[in-house]
Formats: sequence, structure tokens, C-alpha cells
Amino acid sequence: MNRLVALLTDFGTDDPYAGQVAAVLAANSDAQIVSLTHRVPAHHVQLGASIVDASLELLPTGSVLLAVVDPGVGTARRGLIVRRDDRWLVGPDNGLLTPTQGDLQCWSIDRPETWRDPVAPTFHARDIFAPVTARLANYERPDWLGSLVHDPVRVDRPSARVNGPNIRGAVIHVDAFGNLITNIAAALVQTAHMLETQVGDARIQGLATAYGTGHEPVALIGSWNLLEIAVPGGSAAQRLDCRIGDVVTVERTDD
Amino acid sequence: MNRLVALLTDFGTDDPYAGQVAAVLAANSDAQIVSLTHRVPAHHVQLGASIVDASLELLPTGSVLLAVVDPGVGTARRGLIVRRDDRWLVGPDNGLLTPTQGDLQCWSIDRPETWRDPVAPTFHARDIFAPVTARLANYERPDWLGSLVHDPVRVDRPSARVNGPNIRGAVIHVDAFGNLITNIAAALVQTAHMLETQVGDARIQGLATAYGTGHEPVALIGSWNLLEIAVPGGSAAQRLDCRIGDVVTVERTDD
Amino acid sequence: MNRLVALLTDFGTDDPYAGQVAAVLAANSDAQIVSLTHRVPAHHVQLGASIVDASLELLPTGSVLLAVVDPGVGTARRGLIVRRDDRWLVGPDNGLLTPTQGDLQCWSIDRPETWRDPVAPTFHARDIFAPVTARLANYERPDWLGSLVHDPVRVDRPSARVNGPNIRGAVIHVDAFGNLITNIAAALVQTAHMLETQVGDARIQGLATAYGTGHEPVALIGSWNLLEIAVPGGSAAQRLDCRIGDVVTVERTDD
Repeated sequence: MNRLVALLTDFGTDDPYAGQVAAVLAANSDAQIVSLTHRVPAHHVQLGASIVDASLELLPTGSVLLAVVDPGVGTARRGLIVRRDDRWLVGPDNGLLTPTQGDLQCWSIDRPETWRDPVAPTFHARDIFAPVTARLANYERPDWLGSLVHDPVRVDRPSARVNGPNIRGAVIHVDAFGNLITNIAAALVQTAHMLETQVGDARIQGLATAYGTGHEPVALIGSWNLLEIAVPGGSAAQRLDCRIGDVVTVERTDD
Repeated sequence: MNRLVALLTDFGTDDPYAGQVAAVLAANSDAQIVSLTHRVPAHHVQLGASIVDASLELLPTGSVLLAVVDPGVGTARRGLIVRRDDRWLVGPDNGLLTPTQGDLQCWSIDRPETWRDPVAPTFHARDIFAPVTARLANYERPDWLGSLVHDPVRVDRPSARVNGPNIRGAVIHVDAFGNLITNIAAALVQTAHMLETQVGDARIQGLATAYGTGHEPVALIGSWNLLEIAVPGGSAAQRLDCRIGDVVTVERTDD
Repeated sequence: MNRLVALLTDFGTDDPYAGQVAAVLAANSDAQIVSLTHRVPAHHVQLGASIVDASLELLPTGSVLLAVVDPGVGTARRGLIVRRDDRWLVGPDNGLLTPTQGDLQCWSIDRPETWRDPVAPTFHARDIFAPVTARLANYERPDWLGSLVHDPVRVDRPSARVNGPNIRGAVIHVDAFGNLITNIAAALVQTAHMLETQVGDARIQGLATAYGTGHEPVALIGSWNLLEIAVPGGSAAQRLDCRIGDVVTVERTDD
């Protein structure tokens, strides 16, 4: 069966870059290709990593995620193959592919004979990562494509802090509907019997089970598996005058 | 042969939502996946329905159109499978999938064992509609996926009114080239021997057979199979200072 | 093996046009479909032709590139099948598909029985070019689809002029990262031992091998196989206050 290859980049859709990566993949494998998004804000490794985290489990085991948000392209930074949750990830070694902690199998992409020739120094996604991804999709073994390494780059991401019944997190993304995505994991709040979420001037009681049809802000577990603040039929970002980085606090009452 | 699955949403391309829907489809079927557009204006069910109408016949019989413009996600609104013109449609029961009148076969999507688990209350497209679409693409029968219903939601769309030789319609979309798409069906005007279209201050004689190379506004049957006003090489919206909702009238002379 | 079909248009992604073209292709062939970009600036044949030039070699031999930037749609301009570098190109005969010089095999698309019926005069990409592309992907012979012609339209593109050690070119594209893509071919500058690039007020010594990590503008051979000016981690267009059409000069010292 054909492996699935998913793409995630900050290349945008104005230029042909994302399409050229897909073309190289299609030319070198029979994988089914799906674009998760090409509009991660330019060079925003942290948000890219959050989308990797939220999307990986949607892919079948054995599939490959080619993720490129790569401000260091062409410098000495390594390319990496990562085996994580029985999927393969390919991209730059800058924290995009790796959780902040936990064991991982990683290979440094260091076999030029498996790349396109010549390699454009500005476009490793097309000339190095896409050919390597195609080979993984074709069931080649990672140790044909790189050398085992044990020190992948880990990026500290602004994570929510728990202090007794209180959680202090932040808005990490505002989506196109104006929903505020926080870095507060579902597991931290789902077990609470009662809770109050505070963001900007708003105090929101409890967890909603859906956006609903009211006009007041709601807090709920969204599709990122993170706490999310929304205004039904409107923009929470506009209504609450919030943006990325704003503090979100939750007070839990567990019994 | 693999079934074709076409996607149409208002998710935009900034966020990973449309890509995640495609990933779930690809993970659960061998269907060939095509995105019609993900940039229907947010929550604009009527325009979405017009695009469904204009695109359905382009799909081969037996294919599936997953269409999601769903301001009521997570509320009590039903999900629907619709059989229409020998194609399958999947999405919310809010008029997006259904013509304003006519008989249809419809099933309410009410078998949670065929969905992803858990379901994010904010993202039925990914967690309910995509798995159901994948099952239809895999030739599962609709009565395994839902219960027959006879009362799909029908949305009144602003339709053109005919009064003798006069037609009164409206601009329903301005495309990226600045062309004005109206709700006046081709059938209403194609049979006229002569006609005059009036929009804003412009009076346009006859139907053009192509955009052409002049500089004056033209009226013609466009690719939506609707009357369309264009300015060759320019933007009719700018030149005529028109926008969605503006009145368009046609006076026919049939002999 | 399924042929690859790549798409390149100026249709944008707001409207369903690009998706409808893909749907017609998918309905009529088993080709794997990849979108290079749909956001060529509207009617910008020259930039579209540069992207065709830069992308063609990424496609496997035998694949088909459907390229449509077509301000003359519906007028008497011909449609064309072009055989070039062992790939097939399909689109309007306006210079988009053809290099400024060199021999080519070309067929005029003139067999209406191989098109969709009816043809919308505003949308030949969907109703003429996509069906013809699907047939080529299905290994139909070009002389079933059109008549040999020997006079394809050639468009003069602003090309770099060489005068002894001096090259005078121009910025032809500013990408989403703010990099300045010029029309100065890699072959003209790669052989120089030393060179100085001048653009706006900046004078840049030598060729960088990568964007690097500094803060000063660099000149390098980019992924278009053209001379490109970049500012590491920033926008060259903003820093140097440059735009499309600005003059770029290079002075070479070859020994």
C-alpha cells in the first residue's frame, strides 16, 4: 500500500516552492501527498512544532511528515530523520520535529548520494528533504539515508505552568476564525469539576462542549487538543482584544 | 477504481484544518482527493451552496463531495449524507448541500461507531464528516452510516425574479479577477435574441461570447453557468463600483 | 505507471477555479496531480513563463504541465500542446509555454470532440485544456488532439545583457521571504572568480553559498537557478527598498 506523505511548511502559496517540493516527491515515489499547511508564519519554528504535535496522530502509522520551517537553511544546521510514535518525520534539526523531552530515534541526513544534484543552498526542502522523504515512502531504511544521532535540538516552548489549582498559560495561535488556541493541554483541565478561565478582561466559567449558539466567550477543548477560547459566530481575538502571547489563567476546583 | 473525493470548506489555508481533513481522508481510503476551494468566506453558506451547484456536475458519478461551511458545528444541527445527481454529498444539514427544492435522498449521520474517537466538538469535518466520507469512498452503503430522513434544511437563496421580459437578479460573488457573478441562470437569458443588462450605471447590449479584447464591460454566460459581467483585462467590480448584493437587471427581446 | 500532471495558473485560491480544473483532470485520468502554484499574479505571462522554466526539470520525463495564464481566453488565440525537454506542456499560445528561442514540437489544440461540451468561453482551462491534459496523461498521441504548427508565440522577456565583464539585469520576482529573484542566469556568474553585484544602494562582493546567518545582503544562486539577492533572516526587498523591474548589475573579474 502506498505510504502517505504529509507536508507542512512556511513557504506560503504565492511562490512555486511548496508545489516544487510536492513535484519532487511525486516524481520519486508513489506516495499519496497531502498538504497540512504551507502558511506557518515565516520562520516560526515554535508554532510549526505545535502543528506537528497536533497533527501527527492523524497520520497512519508508517507515514512520513515532511516539515520545513527552516531559518537556518544552508548553514551548518543538520537535517534530521526522526522516528516518533511509529511515524517518520523529515526536516531541519531545529526543534520543529522534536518534543521538548522524551526519547527519540534520530538520524542525521548526511548521504549526499541520496539527494538531488545539484543542491540549491537556499532550498534543502526540495533538493535534500524531499528526495529523502520519497525514499522513506518507498520503504528504504533510515540508516541508508543518515547516521544515528542522540542529540536532536530541543526547543523550549512556552509551556503552561501548574501551581496547585492554578494554571498559567498563553495564547500560542489565533486561527482564521478568531479562536484563541492556548498552550494549556486538555489533560490539565478536563478532569476539573469546575474551572474558571481568565483571559484579558473575560472570566469564563466551566468548559463548553461546543462553540454553541450564544454570544458570550466560551472555553473548550478544541481540535488541537488544547484549551481554546471562542466566541460563537464571532472572533474571540477581536471581542477580547487578544493576541499571541497573551496570558491565560485557569483556576480549577477538582471536588 | 478509486473514487474521487472533492473538498469545499471555509477553513482557509492559513491554519492546518483543511489539511487535517485531507489527512484523515487519505488515512482511511484510497480515494483521489481534490480541493475545490477552502476559501469560501467564513460561515457563508449561500455562496458555498452556489459553488456546490456549479461544481457538482464536474465530478464523475459515484464521487463524493465533502462540503463544510458550518457555523453551527457542535450544536444540535444534524450531519447529512445527500444523494444528488448520482453523486454523494457529506456535510452539515444547513442548506449547503441541498438545492432550494426538488426530491433528494438524505441520511442523518448518526452512527458514532463510524467516526473518529474522540470527536472534537469544534471540528466535525475532521472527526465525523471525513471518516464518513472515507467510508462512502470505500463503497460502504449510506444506510450503514446514517438513518433516512425526509426533511433536509432548505435555504432560501436570493434568486432572480422574472417578470415578463424583465429579470431582476443580484451579484452573488466577485471573483479574484473582478468579474461579477450574478444569480441569473444561463437558461433565462440564452434564448433571448437581444437583451440589455443593467448594473450600476452601465448598460450592456447583448451577450458576448468571450471576455474579448475590448475595454468595455461585457455580459456573458460564465463558467458558473450564470450571467456574469466582466471588463476584458480589468476588474468589472472596480470599473463599475459594484459589490455583492448589487442589483442586476436584464431586459429580454425574444423576437 | 501513472503520469504526473503539474498545474500552474493565475487563478488564485479564493475561487473554485483551480480546484475545478483539478476535478476535471481527476475525473478523466489516473494521473497524480500536483499544484505548482495558482498564485501567479493575474495575467502575468512573463513571470509564469519564468516559473515554467524553473520547474520543468523537476518533473519526470513524460509528465504533463498544464499552465494557464491567459488574458486572451475566449479570443482567437490558439491553445497549444508543446513537447519540450521530453515533457508535455498544455496551455494558451501566448509565450507562457515556450522559451524565447529554440526548436520545439507544437500542436494547435483544434479537435473539439476531445473537449468538454459545452465549453464556457471564459474557462478554457477547465473545458479544453484539462480534458486535453487528461488525454495526454492517458498516453493519447498529440496528433489525435491537435495539428502540428511551427510558429508558436515567443514572448520577449527582459533578459540580462552582457557587455564584456558587465551584466545588466533586473529583478523579475520578489518572493514571500522578500528575496529578489533576478533574470541573471547562474551560468553567467558562476564562472567568475570575483564579482560585485549592485542593486539599489547596495554593493555586494562575491557569491554566498547559502543565505547564512549574518545581517548583510548576500548574492547567491537561488533555487530558480538565477542570481538572487537575500538578507539572512530578513527581507531584501524591504532592506534595499527594491521591487520588480529594478536594475541589477554585476561586474565580473574572471581571473
